[in-house]
Amino acid sequence: MTEKTITKIDIRGYHLDGYQHVNNARYLEFLEEGRWQHYENISVEAYEKLGFAFVIVNININYRLPAVFGDVIRIETNIEKIGNTSLIFNQVIFNDKNEKIVCDAKITFVILNQKTGKPFIIDETFRQLLLKEVSM
Amino acid sequence: MTEKTITKIDIRGYHLDGYQHVNNARYLEFLEEGRWQHYENISVEAYEKLGFAFVIVNININYRLPAVFGDVIRIETNIEKIGNTSLIFNQVIFNDKNEKIVCDAKITFVILNQKTGKPFIIDETFRQLLLKEVSM
Amino acid sequence: MTEKTITKIDIRGYHLDGYQHVNNARYLEFLEEGRWQHYENISVEAYEKLGFAFVIVNININYRLPAVFGDVIRIETNIEKIGNTSLIFNQVIFNDKNEKIVCDAKITFVILNQKTGKPFIIDETFRQLLLKEVSM
Amino acid sequence: MTEKTITKIDIRGYHLDGYQHVNNARYLEFLEEGRWQHYENISVEAYEKLGFAFVIVNININYRLPAVFGDVIRIETNIEKIGNTSLIFNQVIFNDKNEKIVCDAKITFVILNQKTGKPFIIDETFRQLLLKEVSM
Repeated sequence: MTEKTITKIDIRGYHLDGYQHVNNARYLEFLEEGRWQHYENISVEAYEKLGFAFVIVNININYRLPAVFGDVIRIETNIEKIGNTSLIFNQVIFNDKNEKIVCDAKITFVILNQKTGKPFIIDETFRQLLLKEVSM
Repeated sequence: MTEKTITKIDIRGYHLDGYQHVNNARYLEFLEEGRWQHYENISVEAYEKLGFAFVIVNININYRLPAVFGDVIRIETNIEKIGNTSLIFNQVIFNDKNEKIVCDAKITFVILNQKTGKPFIIDETFRQLLLKEVSM
Repeated sequence: MTEKTITKIDIRGYHLDGYQHVNNARYLEFLEEGRWQHYENISVEAYEKLGFAFVIVNININYRLPAVFGDVIRIETNIEKIGNTSLIFNQVIFNDKNEKIVCDAKITFVILNQKTGKPFIIDETFRQLLLKEVSM
Repeated sequence: MTEKTITKIDIRGYHLDGYQHVNNARYLEFLEEGRWQHYENISVEAYEKLGFAFVIVNININYRLPAVFGDVIRIETNIEKIGNTSLIFNQVIFNDKNEKIVCDAKITFVILNQKTGKPFIIDETFRQLLLKEVSM
């Protein structure tokens, strides 16, 4: 089981849309925030030193229940799978009060070498870094 | 083949993120804009008179190539399938100059009765309206 | 001197625009977040029980230095002035590491009675509530 | 009188916030869109060839009336003043049906030399370019 990162966000008026619930696009920012927090320790260094870029290739997201003004959501972020050149995040958003699932998503990335623009082969050292089993 | 709606958007500086390409969340706003245009003639009336609400239950989106400053994207929006209580949009975003696919997505909605909050059964009349074979 | 609320935000890739600094519009969301936190204890109740709505009539914002990826910003929010039917927030955003001012803003609101849509006269009791000298 | 650029935008559900009117931050994106359209012919070239960057130093915006779902807004953008190193845009947003002013804003920019990061002196040739009296 991979390490899980918890991110809490208070739902404000500016997160809502005309239906008075959180807009579908805003959830992707919430999920992105969760992923930045998950890789907080390595993201800047990895980008600058290792020279790789995380590029999203697919998002598959289920919207299960609306989040509304005054709700607190809890984003749980972990790595589901690491392949040769890709990795998949599993992210679930809960209503922090009643524990119901608001949405869940799988986010697939490829990792590109910034210089060549080509996929970066994920070796064992890099794999352990991505799994947060080691730090830089 | 269902009617297709074309939406063009010029990519500006405020659409980009730190990687200097359009951010993953912004595409969902672009797709939403495409859907509003697709149902421009019925959206306000349908909402107010018929009392139904379109609620997204799933988005499955592939990001194939980045869109950058100065690009013009073309969103093609059509209905892929209408079920008993749900409908699926098919949306493809092209780079309008080189015709390459930037991203493609399937967006699944259920239609809820605003008063009861329960799914709305899509009968033949409503189905024709959603397929734009008739107007209100 | 009125009570000051501190809000810290980590700058992420999705906060930036094509110039790779925080976009001008995003700062207004940061400031709005600061104001929600300032009135966290009264905002829901005030809206629902007292029936008033805060409506922005003017924003005057100076952008002094860019905020970039990896920065932590600190928003300081307090009330500058309360008039008969309006109030002015003073908000300053600092770079939390070097203490330089990133931007500063005055945000002027009128308070409307939700039912009548007319300005709400700010009496002494309400004034103390807005100044956080008393709680509901 | 300087040339005026007209931009029309249909207000959609995703432009609104929890109050069901257009959020204060979204207007800044609308204004930015208006400015890109105003300088559509020179923006890419100016940035790449001339090597200058437009940097906002102040926004002073009055929110006069709400824009809601189904409204069409019309943004009028022109240059109010050009100084030695700065320029001021005047932008007014109208409700396109009833001609009422939704908001109006003055946006002050300095123009920086991208290489030195220092202000760019606006000479007569550049001034005419900014006033759209000549093209590149």
